Amino acid sequence: MSQIYDRVALIGLGLIASSMFWAMKRSGLAGEVTGYARSAETRATAREIGLCDRVCESAAEAVEGADLVVLCVPVGAMGAVAKEIAPALKPGATVSDVGSVKKAVISAVAPHLPQGVHFVPAHPMAGTEHSGPTSGFAELFDNKYCLIVPVPGSDRDAVDRLESLWHALGSKTDEMDADHHDLVCAVTSHAPHLIAYTMVGVADDIRRVTDSEVIKYSAAGFRDFTRIAASDPTMWRDVFLSNKDATLEILGRFTEELFALQKAIRDGDGDHLHHYFTRTRAIRKGIIDAGQDTDAPDFGRGKV
Amino acid sequence: MSQIYDRVALIGLGLIASSMFWAMKRSGLAGEVTGYARSAETRATAREIGLCDRVCESAAEAVEGADLVVLCVPVGAMGAVAKEIAPALKPGATVSDVGSVKKAVISAVAPHLPQGVHFVPAHPMAGTEHSGPTSGFAELFDNKYCLIVPVPGSDRDAVDRLESLWHALGSKTDEMDADHHDLVCAVTSHAPHLIAYTMVGVADDIRRVTDSEVIKYSAAGFRDFTRIAASDPTMWRDVFLSNKDATLEILGRFTEELFALQKAIRDGDGDHLHHYFTRTRAIRKGIIDAGQDTDAPDFGRGKV
Repeated sequence: MSQIYDRVALIGLGLIASSMFWAMKRSGLAGEVTGYARSAETRATAREIGLCDRVCESAAEAVEGADLVVLCVPVGAMGAVAKEIAPALKPGATVSDVGSVKKAVISAVAPHLPQGVHFVPAHPMAGTEHSGPTSGFAELFDNKYCLIVPVPGSDRDAVDRLESLWHALGSKTDEMDADHHDLVCAVTSHAPHLIAYTMVGVADDIRRVTDSEVIKYSAAGFRDFTRIAASDPTMWRDVFLSNKDATLEILGRFTEELFALQKAIRDGDGDHLHHYFTRTRAIRKGIIDAGQDTDAPDFGRGKV
Repeated sequence: MSQIYDRVALIGLGLIASSMFWAMKRSGLAGEVTGYARSAETRATAREIGLCDRVCESAAEAVEGADLVVLCVPVGAMGAVAKEIAPALKPGATVSDVGSVKKAVISAVAPHLPQGVHFVPAHPMAGTEHSGPTSGFAELFDNKYCLIVPVPGSDRDAVDRLESLWHALGSKTDEMDADHHDLVCAVTSHAPHLIAYTMVGVADDIRRVTDSEVIKYSAAGFRDFTRIAASDPTMWRDVFLSNKDATLEILGRFTEELFALQKAIRDGDGDHLHHYFTRTRAIRKGIIDAGQDTDAPDFGRGKV
């Protein structure tokens, strides 16, 4: 099979970009991959560990001659990066991104792109709690979904080509519009992250329970929250600020249901609780059946 | 090393009891282990898989002659079981339990126990989302904490002996009083479970986002909640109803902090969010350093 893109540029070299690089090398379906990160330290680390075929000293240099440019910076930085690289983009190139929100990214990026450059926003639904250039691994996207969010007027061939790349990286793909994307992600990702951050913050705040107790006894449930509450703070700040409406809507729903369950506890309504807890088991089963999680007891953590 | 107890009786044969049995067999430090479960189906399964040296047809038969009796039934059933076995208990025997709340269990169980029987409540802080007699495994308690909650007048030798058993099962132990236990568990276990149940329930409720979308895209954070929200509904109903005050207190704190974060999102206060998200990372690091979780990216789920 021939290469999908001869030249790919990754702007921002964190968890997603580094995983994309190793997955591209695994697939052999991309040619030269250039990379750029704003921090000199990140660029030095990237060079040391062989992350990217060529690490450049500016974003403009990295995108020069690239057939595909992928913006892998926090959502709040997308607009500035797009503006910076716009003059250096090759006519006919595709610009994509991996941002966790789509409406805000499209508004920030699209106005800067010159005529003749294709814009195909995307969002791989995969991640870990680690961040930075050394956190990537080729298997991150295997069997996970990458959502493709074409904008009005997106070139069909450019969309198909980007989807082929994501398939080569191990992902399945679905297409949807930006509004629906942002709502789906508020449910499956943004609200869960904020709730996990909150629960961990509360545990840290209760003065009558020491941090050391919280840590020692975390296997009883709490630690499941701490993994996603250890995610990159800058990335997540930007996500919440740029997907404000959908996140606040889901959090409103969440609070309503939490209050209903609190009331059931206060009133001693065991039937309400039992019924609710039975229903949520089915969703877990669906996730296991779809291969989106492992059914190993305790995530197979037994050997910790 | 000689046996810690010659005869142990397990009443209720779910995840915890079956894991205790396999861990006792691994350690070789307990003699004959009898078992009883209310459901005939569970007793039949236990006999099939060799769970317990002897599966009895009544709780009274199982505890006859036992040096240690461990109540492994849902918290709401502890009182009735204690009443049922009381006349059959051997003088000098120790009765313990594995309930997730302690004040309610002590109130329900203690009044039934005859003079000369030692009561030493306990709570292993470990579990998985699976339940029933086939869900146990010997490693469940390894390196996890078992909280020992002596009651006023608990016999020191009886407490020490029970702690030795838990050490033999792989656990570390800490002692604390029932009030503190119930607050610590509200923070590390009960509130997180209720919040996870709620988040999964909300996802199931949003009609504009299909269950199939929630399932397919769950790797973006949501699925971490679904594991604990798949826990046994009866057990958890009883936990919330019997640790009402501490759970509602923590949920109140949680709601306050969630509202503060929601306001920060609404007001666009990025600094507040960034600061909050940075603080929660430290707790995660403490849990990894204490060996209470794995630092493998994504819990090592890569191979799903």
